[in-house]
Amino acid sequence: MPLNPDRFLDDLHRLRSFGASGEGKGVVRPAFSAVDIAARRWLASRMEEAGLKTHFDPIGNLFGLGGEKSLLIGSHSDSQPEGGWLDGALGVVAGLEIARAAKETGGPAISVVNFQDEEGRFGILTGSDVWTGSISLAEADMFTDTDGLALGAARSRMAGRAREFLPHDMFTGFIEMHIEQGPGMDVSGDQIGIVSDIVGIREVRIQITGRQNHAGTTPMALRQDAFQALSTFNQRINERFSVVATPATVWTLGHAELSPNASSVVPGLARFSMQWRDGDPARLIYMETILREVAEEVALEKQVTIELGEVGGIEPAAMDTRLKAALREAAEDLAPGKWLDLPSGALHDAANVSRVMPSAMLFVPSIGGISHAFDEDTKETDLVKGLEVLNQAALSL
Amino acid sequence: MPLNPDRFLDDLHRLRSFGASGEGKGVVRPAFSAVDIAARRWLASRMEEAGLKTHFDPIGNLFGLGGEKSLLIGSHSDSQPEGGWLDGALGVVAGLEIARAAKETGGPAISVVNFQDEEGRFGILTGSDVWTGSISLAEADMFTDTDGLALGAARSRMAGRAREFLPHDMFTGFIEMHIEQGPGMDVSGDQIGIVSDIVGIREVRIQITGRQNHAGTTPMALRQDAFQALSTFNQRINERFSVVATPATVWTLGHAELSPNASSVVPGLARFSMQWRDGDPARLIYMETILREVAEEVALEKQVTIELGEVGGIEPAAMDTRLKAALREAAEDLAPGKWLDLPSGALHDAANVSRVMPSAMLFVPSIGGISHAFDEDTKETDLVKGLEVLNQAALSL
Repeated sequence: MPLNPDRFLDDLHRLRSFGASGEGKGVVRPAFSAVDIAARRWLASRMEEAGLKTHFDPIGNLFGLGGEKSLLIGSHSDSQPEGGWLDGALGVVAGLEIARAAKETGGPAISVVNFQDEEGRFGILTGSDVWTGSISLAEADMFTDTDGLALGAARSRMAGRAREFLPHDMFTGFIEMHIEQGPGMDVSGDQIGIVSDIVGIREVRIQITGRQNHAGTTPMALRQDAFQALSTFNQRINERFSVVATPATVWTLGHAELSPNASSVVPGLARFSMQWRDGDPARLIYMETILREVAEEVALEKQVTIELGEVGGIEPAAMDTRLKAALREAAEDLAPGKWLDLPSGALHDAANVSRVMPSAMLFVPSIGGISHAFDEDTKETDLVKGLEVLNQAALSL
Repeated sequence: MPLNPDRFLDDLHRLRSFGASGEGKGVVRPAFSAVDIAARRWLASRMEEAGLKTHFDPIGNLFGLGGEKSLLIGSHSDSQPEGGWLDGALGVVAGLEIARAAKETGGPAISVVNFQDEEGRFGILTGSDVWTGSISLAEADMFTDTDGLALGAARSRMAGRAREFLPHDMFTGFIEMHIEQGPGMDVSGDQIGIVSDIVGIREVRIQITGRQNHAGTTPMALRQDAFQALSTFNQRINERFSVVATPATVWTLGHAELSPNASSVVPGLARFSMQWRDGDPARLIYMETILREVAEEVALEKQVTIELGEVGGIEPAAMDTRLKAALREAAEDLAPGKWLDLPSGALHDAANVSRVMPSAMLFVPSIGGISHAFDEDTKETDLVKGLEVLNQAALSL
């Protein structure tokens, strides 16, 4: 049987019955929760019915192997604490349908993967992090969720089915299909996005120390107001980052706390986080240089001290040229004039996998750009178009 | 016996043994706490030893009456949760010494007052608020502290000693001696400050609603970022208020909260408080007009909604011309060239009392401008100079 869009959509809707939120199509299926494990077992049974050989590795990644040496297609089926039905699930079920159709039609060997804890209940992209060797299983076992549960304890729930880690050289490459999670294609009217690269991230926690004082008796000119320093810092960063930013560059100040946080007290302390993302490692570094310069300037101007914590982050990941070309060719064939190249501002397992094998990503639009929310959705015609493009690209490789 | 500076300082140091913090000279003596009540009972005993007739009213204000018709001198002996030894206590003990010396030397009748809950454990200047009729006792009884204790329950601890409210016309006027609580006189080197007026306050809580979104996939141009709107609002307020401000005008953004307050999420909500103070009621109103205009501008520019809560506040209080003149004359006599007129940026009981009788205030310097903290202090020479100026002014009236 060739590619079957109805069977693909049926499996996708069936998967959302595991952890259904009761609100729209939303799901609550955090990594290693009972419904996450049940969903993985159901997916494994569907893979076996399709003639794939299933394999759970120690961190909980599920593989459906189509042969000794194959292209790997997949994503993840765990969700955010309040998640949408497509984020991750789409890529896994698309891989299942393409591998199943290939088996049925005697096509090339296609394997499927369902990574564990992409949504970071314990770490960041934990399943692909461990499989690709970014961190060891022992390190990952020490990670805890917000309730203090260790990943080591959580994964013991799946230990009965776990076998060894699969070698990377079983696979010729990896393609991940995913919803865009942003408004770009919904606005432009495109149906297919070919990811050029997955952006890198930098993040730093910053503390501004001024002097706490009486909001009535401390003249404006004598204040060392930590909030005013934060506000000036923010405006200055906006000005200076704007000069070097591309349209895809983003930066965010999403977390801030004042102390003592009282309306009648000049705040003596502000703690906040700055995050910036870009596809160019050199720009990420240059933005850090600007941030350090602005911190020095504002500290001097506002007579406060500004301390920067350790700058953490993840490097940008370029997608593979040959795989991108195959996706572009299929897109131009099946959605002529309705596809585009675009960077991914969100992290994905493909960023990890690209470090051990050629990798690529295919995006379909998100209605209203909404994701990580129960009302996340994509038109079924767009879901099917993405499946068809990915299938044609996979068969051409 | 004439004015006795050593006895005055001894009483002042003795008072700080009630609720001594163990850090420097600091005190922990919140209104109606066990140590606050013990301190009031000790002060009452000292008043009686001085020949004054003591009187507790229902809200816990303690009067030491020097005659049927008299000048009233005093302040409060309750403290902030972490308070200094002089804030309030100085004015009460100065009143005690002046009334005591007047009794001993056959001088004019001087009475003393020790207001309750000036520091606002339950309300704002609660004791003088109730005595001067700004609020009723029944209204005050409903106020609760941060632990949920009602003032009505707290004041029952002093109910055994409480008698009626005293009529205002027993008193010819009111003078409050207080530490400056700001750095002005410490910087200028003056010893005595004559308060021209007590500033008025306006305060409003503001909520900015934008749209919460993914910090990676939401382009800068499409964001409705509540923190960015808050930061722009703050910078715009600084520019526009600066144009109308006098050197004594202050404004503060001391409290702010973001939601969901996560480094990877564009904040959808910001809640914050704006407070402004000035001695001119017209300027207070004009600043509110500016604030409303800026809120409208920023809401439009940043595509967010900005909702202002009810604007609360207290009107400015001008001090009495005749009492100020008496204080100035005594200051020029005892501290020639080392006194000045200045506004009070902090609220004081005198603001309430000025609405029912002629009132004035005398400031002495605060070392380093520190107050509402355990290390609040004033040189003993400055404390004594203030006492002498107040005494000479009182005797001249």
